Amino acid sequence: MSEKGHLWGGRFGSGPAEAFERLNASIPFDIRLAPYDVRGSIAHARMLGEVGIISREEAEALVGGLEAVLAEIEAGEFEWTLTDEDVHTAVERRLREKVGEVALKLHTGRSRNDQVALDLHLFCRDAAERIRDGVLDTMLALVQVAERHRDLVIPGYTHLQRAQPLLLAHHLLAHFWALGRDLRRLEAAREAANVSPLGAAALGGTPHPVDPAFTAAELEMEPFVNSLDAVSERDFALDLLYACAVLGVHLSRMGEEWVLWTSQEFGFAELDDAYSSGSSIMPQKKNPDAYELMRGKAGRLIGDLNALLVVLKGLPLGYSKDLQEDKEPLFDAVDGVLAVLDVLPGMLRTARFRRERMERAAGGFALATELADFLAMRGVPFREAHRVVGRLVRRCEELGVSLEEVPREELAAAHPAFGGLPEGLLTPRGSVAGKKSPGSTSPAAVEEQLRRARELLETRRGGAGTVDDRG
Amino acid sequence: MSEKGHLWGGRFGSGPAEAFERLNASIPFDIRLAPYDVRGSIAHARMLGEVGIISREEAEALVGGLEAVLAEIEAGEFEWTLTDEDVHTAVERRLREKVGEVALKLHTGRSRNDQVALDLHLFCRDAAERIRDGVLDTMLALVQVAERHRDLVIPGYTHLQRAQPLLLAHHLLAHFWALGRDLRRLEAAREAANVSPLGAAALGGTPHPVDPAFTAAELEMEPFVNSLDAVSERDFALDLLYACAVLGVHLSRMGEEWVLWTSQEFGFAELDDAYSSGSSIMPQKKNPDAYELMRGKAGRLIGDLNALLVVLKGLPLGYSKDLQEDKEPLFDAVDGVLAVLDVLPGMLRTARFRRERMERAAGGFALATELADFLAMRGVPFREAHRVVGRLVRRCEELGVSLEEVPREELAAAHPAFGGLPEGLLTPRGSVAGKKSPGSTSPAAVEEQLRRARELLETRRGGAGTVDDRG
Amino acid sequence: MSEKGHLWGGRFGSGPAEAFERLNASIPFDIRLAPYDVRGSIAHARMLGEVGIISREEAEALVGGLEAVLAEIEAGEFEWTLTDEDVHTAVERRLREKVGEVALKLHTGRSRNDQVALDLHLFCRDAAERIRDGVLDTMLALVQVAERHRDLVIPGYTHLQRAQPLLLAHHLLAHFWALGRDLRRLEAAREAANVSPLGAAALGGTPHPVDPAFTAAELEMEPFVNSLDAVSERDFALDLLYACAVLGVHLSRMGEEWVLWTSQEFGFAELDDAYSSGSSIMPQKKNPDAYELMRGKAGRLIGDLNALLVVLKGLPLGYSKDLQEDKEPLFDAVDGVLAVLDVLPGMLRTARFRRERMERAAGGFALATELADFLAMRGVPFREAHRVVGRLVRRCEELGVSLEEVPREELAAAHPAFGGLPEGLLTPRGSVAGKKSPGSTSPAAVEEQLRRARELLETRRGGAGTVDDRG
Amino acid sequence: MSEKGHLWGGRFGSGPAEAFERLNASIPFDIRLAPYDVRGSIAHARMLGEVGIISREEAEALVGGLEAVLAEIEAGEFEWTLTDEDVHTAVERRLREKVGEVALKLHTGRSRNDQVALDLHLFCRDAAERIRDGVLDTMLALVQVAERHRDLVIPGYTHLQRAQPLLLAHHLLAHFWALGRDLRRLEAAREAANVSPLGAAALGGTPHPVDPAFTAAELEMEPFVNSLDAVSERDFALDLLYACAVLGVHLSRMGEEWVLWTSQEFGFAELDDAYSSGSSIMPQKKNPDAYELMRGKAGRLIGDLNALLVVLKGLPLGYSKDLQEDKEPLFDAVDGVLAVLDVLPGMLRTARFRRERMERAAGGFALATELADFLAMRGVPFREAHRVVGRLVRRCEELGVSLEEVPREELAAAHPAFGGLPEGLLTPRGSVAGKKSPGSTSPAAVEEQLRRARELLETRRGGAGTVDDRG
Repeated sequence: MSEKGHLWGGRFGSGPAEAFERLNASIPFDIRLAPYDVRGSIAHARMLGEVGIISREEAEALVGGLEAVLAEIEAGEFEWTLTDEDVHTAVERRLREKVGEVALKLHTGRSRNDQVALDLHLFCRDAAERIRDGVLDTMLALVQVAERHRDLVIPGYTHLQRAQPLLLAHHLLAHFWALGRDLRRLEAAREAANVSPLGAAALGGTPHPVDPAFTAAELEMEPFVNSLDAVSERDFALDLLYACAVLGVHLSRMGEEWVLWTSQEFGFAELDDAYSSGSSIMPQKKNPDAYELMRGKAGRLIGDLNALLVVLKGLPLGYSKDLQEDKEPLFDAVDGVLAVLDVLPGMLRTARFRRERMERAAGGFALATELADFLAMRGVPFREAHRVVGRLVRRCEELGVSLEEVPREELAAAHPAFGGLPEGLLTPRGSVAGKKSPGSTSPAAVEEQLRRARELLETRRGGAGTVDDRG
Repeated sequence: MSEKGHLWGGRFGSGPAEAFERLNASIPFDIRLAPYDVRGSIAHARMLGEVGIISREEAEALVGGLEAVLAEIEAGEFEWTLTDEDVHTAVERRLREKVGEVALKLHTGRSRNDQVALDLHLFCRDAAERIRDGVLDTMLALVQVAERHRDLVIPGYTHLQRAQPLLLAHHLLAHFWALGRDLRRLEAAREAANVSPLGAAALGGTPHPVDPAFTAAELEMEPFVNSLDAVSERDFALDLLYACAVLGVHLSRMGEEWVLWTSQEFGFAELDDAYSSGSSIMPQKKNPDAYELMRGKAGRLIGDLNALLVVLKGLPLGYSKDLQEDKEPLFDAVDGVLAVLDVLPGMLRTARFRRERMERAAGGFALATELADFLAMRGVPFREAHRVVGRLVRRCEELGVSLEEVPREELAAAHPAFGGLPEGLLTPRGSVAGKKSPGSTSPAAVEEQLRRARELLETRRGGAGTVDDRG
Repeated sequence: MSEKGHLWGGRFGSGPAEAFERLNASIPFDIRLAPYDVRGSIAHARMLGEVGIISREEAEALVGGLEAVLAEIEAGEFEWTLTDEDVHTAVERRLREKVGEVALKLHTGRSRNDQVALDLHLFCRDAAERIRDGVLDTMLALVQVAERHRDLVIPGYTHLQRAQPLLLAHHLLAHFWALGRDLRRLEAAREAANVSPLGAAALGGTPHPVDPAFTAAELEMEPFVNSLDAVSERDFALDLLYACAVLGVHLSRMGEEWVLWTSQEFGFAELDDAYSSGSSIMPQKKNPDAYELMRGKAGRLIGDLNALLVVLKGLPLGYSKDLQEDKEPLFDAVDGVLAVLDVLPGMLRTARFRRERMERAAGGFALATELADFLAMRGVPFREAHRVVGRLVRRCEELGVSLEEVPREELAAAHPAFGGLPEGLLTPRGSVAGKKSPGSTSPAAVEEQLRRARELLETRRGGAGTVDDRG
Repeated sequence: MSEKGHLWGGRFGSGPAEAFERLNASIPFDIRLAPYDVRGSIAHARMLGEVGIISREEAEALVGGLEAVLAEIEAGEFEWTLTDEDVHTAVERRLREKVGEVALKLHTGRSRNDQVALDLHLFCRDAAERIRDGVLDTMLALVQVAERHRDLVIPGYTHLQRAQPLLLAHHLLAHFWALGRDLRRLEAAREAANVSPLGAAALGGTPHPVDPAFTAAELEMEPFVNSLDAVSERDFALDLLYACAVLGVHLSRMGEEWVLWTSQEFGFAELDDAYSSGSSIMPQKKNPDAYELMRGKAGRLIGDLNALLVVLKGLPLGYSKDLQEDKEPLFDAVDGVLAVLDVLPGMLRTARFRRERMERAAGGFALATELADFLAMRGVPFREAHRVVGRLVRRCEELGVSLEEVPREELAAAHPAFGGLPEGLLTPRGSVAGKKSPGSTSPAAVEEQLRRARELLETRRGGAGTVDDRG
């Protein structure tokens, strides 16, 4: 039993206890790294041949064998067993079955420490790109929906109290720009992942004349700077988990809003049937499940980030087995984010808005600030203007009328300057149109935002913006 | 496509989008709840028959069918598909295949909300018990190892500086009592889980005259008190996750110590080959992988607790789909803890201690407190005694001698009272034996602890303590 | 500079660097522990006298001096400086100023390790009790409000979609029972805190014949079992932080609901002016700040729990300075929770509910389940009943009518059994009254809950329930 | 009581409840934002004058008054009261006392929402810069210590088992490069903070013709893009908290290592007296308190990040009072990190290394990989080489000799190729010198790293590297 294929069997008198083997085995989850592992091995084999550590022929044999293994993996035909211990062993075993003893030379000049670090770097780079694409798809959907509903008005809230009317497009674009910051974090995470640790070996480098820059270039990466750092650090994984966590928080905020908007109380929007589910007991229900899951995922994503931060806390440099605990939180976060981003753009595009409900809600006391601002612009000190309108609001409540309906004499009683109040100001659209500041919710400022948003998408998506422009 | 077996298909004009269906489906992970789901359904069916909502014959047919489904599940022969949406649908579909249309009556008087809550209660109760058993096994192992090494001395550390000699048994028992507190948390989690929400229906109860107390009794549980609370709360899951997180922290502390103890620098202990692994590149290595994983798991466990706390934050009462995110963190935590507890007792029992290394380390300056205490007991104010010995330590460092070797004249110069210093006090065993206080590391106090520890184990393990008493 | 009053100055050649001293000093935050520290010292001094380690006279002098110091602390007249390093040093310095050299004997048989652990135990015990009182106050307020509004109906939600009518009292009591579970956690935290570590000394006990049980009894605590565990563990602090975090999550859920309820869209309730704030720019706003803060506090509380779990992760046993990081998260959590609980009962009692808004919202499609249940009770298989009502709901949407208004002929067309539908069933109160199950929202079941709630309060508050029964 | 200076008093019938006021008040902690608040107000006042919303004279009066208030704040002479509610109110009250009624015009075109967001942006920008400076100081210290000990050898560890010899400089530089990545995160956080939200007003912009770009330029910031996003987002605070958390994790790893290195078991290094503390009971102790606190701080920092992520989870856009909970975690994190960075460089520079202890530890079995690599380079397949050396290690353990001392005949018996083993290879320095790969621990590769490190410092510190080059 002691030989079981363990790479490190030589020193030991007895085989591992079964429960220990189960705990120790990473194969059940790190099989996901197999394609990355093989690609890293191909680059390594090429380098070994290039610098003459093995012959060109040996290098070719290894590369050919690895490509065959990769094909098996991609076809879903590769088979592993628990005794493989980890993905590296599994790949190497299969390679040996294919190309014979030369397979034993593949591990020259590297260690499982730099190898697993490379696999994870490649996984994270890939994941960062895929999540970035999903974010861009969502941003495009937000712009499209904003453009389609340029004239819709929605109440803006503070403290979930109606505050002022906003253009729906302005609101959707607020999420757009938040996602734009997520792009930056994802790009930073991609850049952090894009470093090849191969050549660091166990932790101190190797006496073999390996060429880390060659291997890195094969993988379109930068080479590492310090071999000890290269096998000890998981900053790149943290950066990705953090990008996911903040993205998750952004999505949870959007999720909360849609849960509100599709409630009967708000009634601002309705999801397409394809994106809602019903109740097993309450036939009338049309539930915003996906938005709730999107909100809930934030918990998982924050938990995943937290998990890896804690794993790393207090670890001395050099590989420690604790680092094996980095993978499942990563996989969980990436899968969760991608599943949400897969649904979101279509769900946004197919939702319907209820114009009247939104507009009605955007009126009433939400217009009070207009009055205060009106006074302020007539020279009334803002604090006083504020107090005047506050009293007027109370008076309306006593009278049981909305602000639009307040009798002119009450207005005049509240403040003489209200005599000159223009018609139309006290409406949601009037309010929105009256905004003057750049970045505000005024139609002109929103058009400018849309222009910048389109520009951003074109830069980042390589013009794909138009191609995908259905919806 | 719209009919696909969804329980709630009636209201909808179109079928779900594929990506939405993927996101929404819980079946890939909640299949683990299947046995609990069936057991809950059996209790529910019995109750329906008992109170006359269905006939006795119908109840029997349902129970018989459910038992057959349960057998399939336990035999691993049950088959699900993604279109089953969730475990409840899958079980019900299979039941219908077995018993026909009567299966449609099973869902009377309940909802998926109380059903999934029950499944999770049952899972948590079961998990709490299994983890408790694993903790008790570990506690037993600690006692056994302590008893086998009653006379071994180890340095006690503060700030990882050698502070005073301790009996190894005392040190091991410190972990024992920490685990004892984990038992309490696990028992509290079990109690919290041991409440049946069945009968709460969707959230407000049901017009059917169901008998929640009957169902609960069938499952050996308490019935819920408030139907809304019953479907909205996940406190019991939090309690279990918290118990796991603190247990995980305890285990991480033990893990850290064993990583230290088995290092060449400490050299206090050696793991059995069956519980260590080697290096693919460094043949001399014998790595304490399991202890490192045990330390690293704390990160995952803290992350899992965190995840569910965040999921629940700010959720209004009533079922929200966010709650579906409760399962994977739970499963992750329970699996992680059980995998560690499966390994730990055997690993503890088979480890070897290096008496001389430990004893040598427990001497030297670690004995300085003895001197201070000696002076204090001779009436020297403690602060002064402390200062005297501090200076003596510096003197020893200058002389390059250890405290045991300090020449008598230096002692006398340090303080006249040292004239009467008894032989043997300045040794690790002398120090340990000199302790007088209850709960201390003195041999007598440790024997008393061992007695209490055995007593605790007998109470909690129902006398199994002796049966399992190999080692 | 080397002597600065440090207890450990004797060994060192030079004084501490200033920045180090700043980092190391705990006095800026642990001054809060001063009263506990002095109480612990009084118990310790009495014990020293009792067992004869010091004379009765010395003990009396120490106790007298400590009581004077305590009086100064409680009067806010005690003065500390940064050079005091920690609260223990500060207290001892002051004691010495009061009683002279005998003060130096106080530290006999103890260490700062068991001393600081005791202080924290006492703080946590106290905090657990105070929070428990605040929770009980809140529970009482919930019961009172429920009793005052026995007949109010509110929609119950799932997925924030109106699901079924509930009695408001039932809803409020759901929070009551959740808080009831918080009581248990707080009581467990209190019990965990109620252990005296005094006598553990640095980590291994002491050669002085101290009597930890005596000291513990003086403080109405249990004595520790294992000296190493006693100075190394912070489980009791975790237990309190966990109890606060779950309580915080419960409060965040209540907070979210009140933010919704007081929004214009829901319009179910209005806060008293004394418990809301306005806007500097929007005069009409009446913001539920306290409920928002209550929701936001959950973040801090979860963060505080997280912080201490991480601090403890991977620490070897014995005191490590990392443990100093336990205090600020604890203080933050306790202060945050108490500040919220201070406001909540009054805020609940003074809020006004808007009967019509709530009742109207509780009708309409929220009654659909009644119809399905009605069919099911007429023998229609539940799945079919569900489908029938689902189609009826769609029909109503097409017709633009609510469920209460659906023409009889449409009902009959939907299912023949609807012919016998009793008047009044299709109303919120009819629905609520129709529930039959224990624990349900039916008036009878809610009365039973109120009875049990009052009972619980009487048991826990020692009859104070009635005294405080204003509202 | 209703007028108390609240900005929003006009609408309310009664004053706030005291407990509510206490909970709601942010002044006890946001006084720290006062200088930023005033600077923002100065920029705002200038802009108001520039665009003609107020007259030049009014603008000058406001700026003059604000500068006077700022001077008071900086001199510590500013006085606040709890009734000020928040820092903005306090500053405005004082301004009014100084310049009279014109003060009321300052708030034109802005709201507390954009104002507090600006204050926090300025705080974060400042904090990111200060932390960055502290990190650079630490990096410089690492380089200096590395340069001073170019020839010191230390064991490299994996699994805390000695793995291979490393140059101490290589090890120190591994931390250097990790901190280098922290610089990037801090710079990203600074950039994220460097956006002015002023002009967003409450959430939708303002009808006043304000010029956000002017205000931003005054503050050397970029202007916001979307007014709703500007007042709702706290990404910049998260970015800073994240940068602190990862930095904290890095420091915790360094802290752990120094705790190990200064233990008697490792004995690799000794802290200067100025940076260690003693024990109140154990005179011989010299505790690495600062390194322990540095390790423990990671818990707080992770908790702080976690706290804000949770606060933000699920918040709808627009200002919610929950956001007030962002400040204390931020302050806690920034203070904690700065306190550590204040101590660390000096502590690193003044520590002493114990050459022989380190070198001895770096020999022995840590050299086994050399042998395996030696065989591999002689054409022995790596797996076989590994097995051969593994067996040799076991043989040495049986013989009780270290690898350096293994008899030549044993070597030859292990593998014939060992006949040609060069003298000197089997020493720590021989091993290190034998490494050939870039980024490795070989002296040449480390020199190259030092060159790059110096280069980085010069770029980032503006040549200050040399100035500060004492130590």
